[in-house]
Amino acid sequence: MRRLLVVGIGPGNPEQITIEAINALNRADALFIPEKGADKADLADLRREIVARYVTGAGRLVPFAMPVRDETTASYAARVADWHQTIAAIHARLIAEELEEDGTGAFLVWGDPSLYDSTLRILARVKEIGAPPFEVAVIPGITSLQALTAAHAIPLNRVGEPVLVTTGRRLAGAPIGTDTVVMLDGQLAFKALEGEDYDIHWGAYLGTPDEVLVSGRLSDVAEDIERRRAEARSRHGWIMDTYLLRRRAGA
Amino acid sequence: MRRLLVVGIGPGNPEQITIEAINALNRADALFIPEKGADKADLADLRREIVARYVTGAGRLVPFAMPVRDETTASYAARVADWHQTIAAIHARLIAEELEEDGTGAFLVWGDPSLYDSTLRILARVKEIGAPPFEVAVIPGITSLQALTAAHAIPLNRVGEPVLVTTGRRLAGAPIGTDTVVMLDGQLAFKALEGEDYDIHWGAYLGTPDEVLVSGRLSDVAEDIERRRAEARSRHGWIMDTYLLRRRAGA
Ligand SMILES: C[S@@+](CC[C@H](N)C(=O)[O-])C[C@H]1O[C@@H](n2cnc3c(N)ncnc32)[C@H](O)[C@@H]1O
Ligand SMILES: C[S@@+](CC[C@H](N)C(=O)[O-])C[C@H]1O[C@@H](n2cnc3c(N)ncnc32)[C@H](O)[C@@H]1O
Repeated sequence: MRRLLVVGIGPGNPEQITIEAINALNRADALFIPEKGADKADLADLRREIVARYVTGAGRLVPFAMPVRDETTASYAARVADWHQTIAAIHARLIAEELEEDGTGAFLVWGDPSLYDSTLRILARVKEIGAPPFEVAVIPGITSLQALTAAHAIPLNRVGEPVLVTTGRRLAGAPIGTDTVVMLDGQLAFKALEGEDYDIHWGAYLGTPDEVLVSGRLSDVAEDIERRRAEARSRHGWIMDTYLLRRRAGA
Repeated sequence: MRRLLVVGIGPGNPEQITIEAINALNRADALFIPEKGADKADLADLRREIVARYVTGAGRLVPFAMPVRDETTASYAARVADWHQTIAAIHARLIAEELEEDGTGAFLVWGDPSLYDSTLRILARVKEIGAPPFEVAVIPGITSLQALTAAHAIPLNRVGEPVLVTTGRRLAGAPIGTDTVVMLDGQLAFKALEGEDYDIHWGAYLGTPDEVLVSGRLSDVAEDIERRRAEARSRHGWIMDTYLLRRRAGA
């Protein structure tokens, strides 16, 4: 049977890859490398850098073009489902054409494959659309959330307290009681919160030479974050940022 | 100034350590290894195994006895605070006595230092009790939560949905809407939930040769988990387990 390794490669620093992930990449016959278009070239570069540094096995590099989401589809769920279906068809072809019947392929996944990543869901769809049979193994990777807390040298949770991990879209601006990490936020959703009530720890391009960190009381630093984010984004053409919000004692 | 590296070593599989962590351990002059008493000898063994495999630098191993929590202190918060204060005094001594003025020490932390770990909080206390000045850097590690989702080959979150990370103590048995990961649960807190309404993905000793995995509808597998957990725990003398709960569609 074909075997697919879904390998977390960490969130940006090529040293934030595990020995297990390196060994997995070296076991693969084919390394599938998504290419997302010129503006995110830095991301493709990290994947290539990782391969160049650590892959000494015989695995072939198989780049493939990632389709873009059709933003004209009104419903978010339908937009994502259509996009996954298109990618599933591409993966089915890669699996059938690039792997021998007992071959091993590896997908290099940003951060950790469990966190706001669709590779596993897409592979479930590939099984449905009639690709040759395959089994899946997941190799965990450092997440951007951990790169954030490490860069700020802070704990994620308070003693014995819960933490919510969510998206900008879901952080509706309602006051939050639980400490909350926000990912995938293109809209600076924290601006809708009462800034006096929260501390924020924000980071962009974490683990890369372009890393930017800001932390403080939200009301004090929100404008600074907005300004730096806009400036960095226009310089790079893209941005990846994440932040942790904690309600202040007494708020 | 003295420098302390708080290094995540992953949750049990010695290959689940990053290159960055290995390099950090190799930069240290002293590696501080907590020893928790005979019943958790397997944990101390992992730390030693990691050092034996990957540390080729000149760093000295400095084992130290971890005090136990005084379970007679009634309030949870006071119990934890007292315990941290005792450990802080030990750390202050290690820093003063085992490191030169410009020396580097490393603490090997289970999983990731941000997640339900007190090393960073304790080091903040060490600064208050008047140890020699030091700076802290954090090196992230794979968490047990990621070892759980990788072992089950599942995503943590549903598309665009949030996830709560909490403790057994906080999972009060109230129905949960958000997908929830439970750690530090000695009491099988999931038993208080309506089993028909949830799927569970449970794992113990993740990443070790003793790994046990169970998943399914909570009502179908709860007894199986309870039985296996009790059996494994009495065999090893201790257990570490984690689980993800998802409310079923329509529940
Ligand atoms: C599609 S999700 C993928 C997350 C990834 N699987 C992980 O484990 O971090 C992309 C989001 O992750 C966050 N992210 C990923 N890499 C980052 C980095 N280097 N710095 C800051 N945020 C990052 C951002 O919030 C971004 O919108
Ligand atoms: C004090 S917390 C430390 C968590 C650690 N810092 C991490 O990143 O995973 C200990 C809890 O983590 C979970 N845990 C740690 N290692 C585990 C393993 N190998 N298998 C299952 N659960 C584990 C259990 O829920 C345990 O009660």
